[in-house]
Amino acid sequence: MGPGFDDLTRRLIEFRDARDWRQFHGLKNLMLSLNLEAAELLELAQWKSDDEIETAAADPGFRDRLAEECADVLLYLLLICERAGIDLEAAAAAKIERNAVKYPVDKARGNARKYTEL
Amino acid sequence: MGPGFDDLTRRLIEFRDARDWRQFHGLKNLMLSLNLEAAELLELAQWKSDDEIETAAADPGFRDRLAEECADVLLYLLLICERAGIDLEAAAAAKIERNAVKYPVDKARGNARKYTEL
Amino acid sequence: MGPGFDDLTRRLIEFRDARDWRQFHGLKNLMLSLNLEAAELLELAQWKSDDEIETAAADPGFRDRLAEECADVLLYLLLICERAGIDLEAAAAAKIERNAVKYPVDKARGNARKYTEL
Amino acid sequence: MGPGFDDLTRRLIEFRDARDWRQFHGLKNLMLSLNLEAAELLELAQWKSDDEIETAAADPGFRDRLAEECADVLLYLLLICERAGIDLEAAAAAKIERNAVKYPVDKARGNARKYTEL
Repeated sequence: MGPGFDDLTRRLIEFRDARDWRQFHGLKNLMLSLNLEAAELLELAQWKSDDEIETAAADPGFRDRLAEECADVLLYLLLICERAGIDLEAAAAAKIERNAVKYPVDKARGNARKYTEL
Repeated sequence: MGPGFDDLTRRLIEFRDARDWRQFHGLKNLMLSLNLEAAELLELAQWKSDDEIETAAADPGFRDRLAEECADVLLYLLLICERAGIDLEAAAAAKIERNAVKYPVDKARGNARKYTEL
Repeated sequence: MGPGFDDLTRRLIEFRDARDWRQFHGLKNLMLSLNLEAAELLELAQWKSDDEIETAAADPGFRDRLAEECADVLLYLLLICERAGIDLEAAAAAKIERNAVKYPVDKARGNARKYTEL
Repeated sequence: MGPGFDDLTRRLIEFRDARDWRQFHGLKNLMLSLNLEAAELLELAQWKSDDEIETAAADPGFRDRLAEECADVLLYLLLICERAGIDLEAAAAAKIERNAVKYPVDKARGNARKYTEL
């Protein structure tokens, strides 16, 4: 069992407040920063074919870099949700439910079309 | 208590497999898609000043849109980690620890400089 | 008078072909790379307020970094257009025309609403 | 012969000023908006393999959408450079020169490694 959303958020806020960084963490800056971390994650795929990146992910060193970039994205997500008063877990669970309605199994099965084109 | 990382991942994989979508979910496509969702989140800040977005986040309708975009980013993060065999919770906890070392309280307090410039 | 679109493209293709890099420059990789360069440009605004970045742009050193990141984005744009057979200049001129229709002066004047909300 | 950088910029500024939009076009907002347009361009590659997108680009309808997204990126680039006093053409020409030094033909030929790893 990992620390879970609430405990990760608590640790993160403790980290932030010990450095007096709340003043920099306006929502716009956090959303912008999340995009930069997402780009750093994507950079690991640059110049690699679809297959090459699957192969690379089997290498522990590459997987560690992948894990670190994923962690960075998650940390900004938690900061945004704490700032805006969003329950991220509940929002994610609700989104899976909505997607299940938008993409009915019988129509979506085996194709990658957007729900507006189903 | 929310569903937690493991349970969200389980529901998501169930959703994916019922639609036979694993074939589309190569790592590169997932990383690319996560970037698109991050951009949709950022779009909510477009043409808004720092203050305007804080004010907007007090509005339940805007907060719902924010929550939905955050959820989309999280769902792709979970799909990537499942695919690559990454323990996202552990990676995030470890990253908070590493950041605490990189940004010592006495040097980082109250300034937004990158750790390489501290 | 600068070199213009055609001459910049010609120099860029000469650069690419001398290194035998056309093989790496598939459209998907170029589009992904353009996004990474756009993020590097955006990174220059991270943790800066709207005002701070305007002030920073008055500094020649900062403006040089800005110029270099803008150049990187343009170079990928030219590579994409060369690859896909797109006349970028004509496309940009046409887009300004279309925007003029989408945003009529009398309705758009002084507000930042999207054309769908005018 | 197309309109060139200067003339495109002139038309764009005329468009902007007729709508009194300079007030919204702070550098940070323009840089953020450029990233959103880059993401819209990338979205055209979502769920497509490397090969599928090359094939799609042979289709005039798809190429038109590609051209429009490329145009959007260029227009923001021109707005940023006008705002910051950057000569984009000169910056791009200079960057090609610098890249030629960073990636010597004999070392870079046929491989996609970053210059720091050559």
